[in-house]
Amino acid sequence: MALKLEPGARLVVATHNPGKARELAEILDGRFELVAAGELGLPEPEETEQTFCGNALLKARAAAEASGLIALADDSGLSVAALDGAPGIYSARWAGPDRDFALAMAKVEARLEEAGADDFSAWFTSALCVAWPGGPAVVVEGRVDGTLSFPPRGDKGFGYDPIFVPQGHALTFGEMEPAAKDGMSHRARAFVKLKAALL
Amino acid sequence: MALKLEPGARLVVATHNPGKARELAEILDGRFELVAAGELGLPEPEETEQTFCGNALLKARAAAEASGLIALADDSGLSVAALDGAPGIYSARWAGPDRDFALAMAKVEARLEEAGADDFSAWFTSALCVAWPGGPAVVVEGRVDGTLSFPPRGDKGFGYDPIFVPQGHALTFGEMEPAAKDGMSHRARAFVKLKAALL
Repeated sequence: MALKLEPGARLVVATHNPGKARELAEILDGRFELVAAGELGLPEPEETEQTFCGNALLKARAAAEASGLIALADDSGLSVAALDGAPGIYSARWAGPDRDFALAMAKVEARLEEAGADDFSAWFTSALCVAWPGGPAVVVEGRVDGTLSFPPRGDKGFGYDPIFVPQGHALTFGEMEPAAKDGMSHRARAFVKLKAALL
Repeated sequence: MALKLEPGARLVVATHNPGKARELAEILDGRFELVAAGELGLPEPEETEQTFCGNALLKARAAAEASGLIALADDSGLSVAALDGAPGIYSARWAGPDRDFALAMAKVEARLEEAGADDFSAWFTSALCVAWPGGPAVVVEGRVDGTLSFPPRGDKGFGYDPIFVPQGHALTFGEMEPAAKDGMSHRARAFVKLKAALL
């Protein structure tokens, strides 16, 4: 069992988030045959870990064991400096059961106001994990730094993208074309590391 | 950056547990130059994750980033079937700040009595993680099944070894010579996977 991903390998993508699944497919760019965890009827495990890497590992492991396929999982989120890194691993949970990110972004804005913060620095983190059934798992992490901007702008991304302006840019991730975001995002940077390790 | 461990590589061993450090050194059998995290004055990170793999990852990542060296960490513990897998990731914590495993083993026995359990099945799990500074991490898990036996017997191992009789054997891990335990232990089984992946 060598730690190599052969081109064309069949991978189960351990996410039930359509935005993430789409972006992973874009970034992987036809290198693999992707199967969604939902298509296989895999359950969504509870994300009990306290780090992005831990949750990516937990999701990939669960999907690999349940499917017998090599699994790829992403755990990602927005960390705000003035909020001590919140929402962080709770980024999705701040959007509630309806995955309402307008609500989640309003919550970030309200918390910054309450804190009287004038530092709007933030960063996105993406942990990617590839797990082999019964075998090892490889975990990498990518990060992109930027600044929050309110009100939200753009509808091209997902999650907190409309309030995040990456360093050195004027557009939010929500306003960028997918190819532009995929060239600099946390997820793309994690994938560069994964590629260096496994391809 | 290929996911390979070259023989003779310098590895920092991210454990402050002397028993684990000794066993890892035995299992690695001179393949690498091992440096203890304590020797480098690395802090012991808080084990905040809810799985063995997550905690191994957290410890290896922290040691790799703090030292700039490739890091190896182990997170391991005893799970008792009749106690719903307890103490599990809390195995070391059941021994208290003084790492008093006589106390921890007595607690296991008391809990089994309280529960009126007649199933003494248990298993040891070891998660091993190798992390590259700024780079990927590889995680594997090994397990050995067995039966608990009271009172504790033998002083050759550490932790819960004196109450654990591996399947198909009569001696506890505490009574076995290191070479015998290292031939079948959870840690050795995890290492076989790690070796297959990285060596």
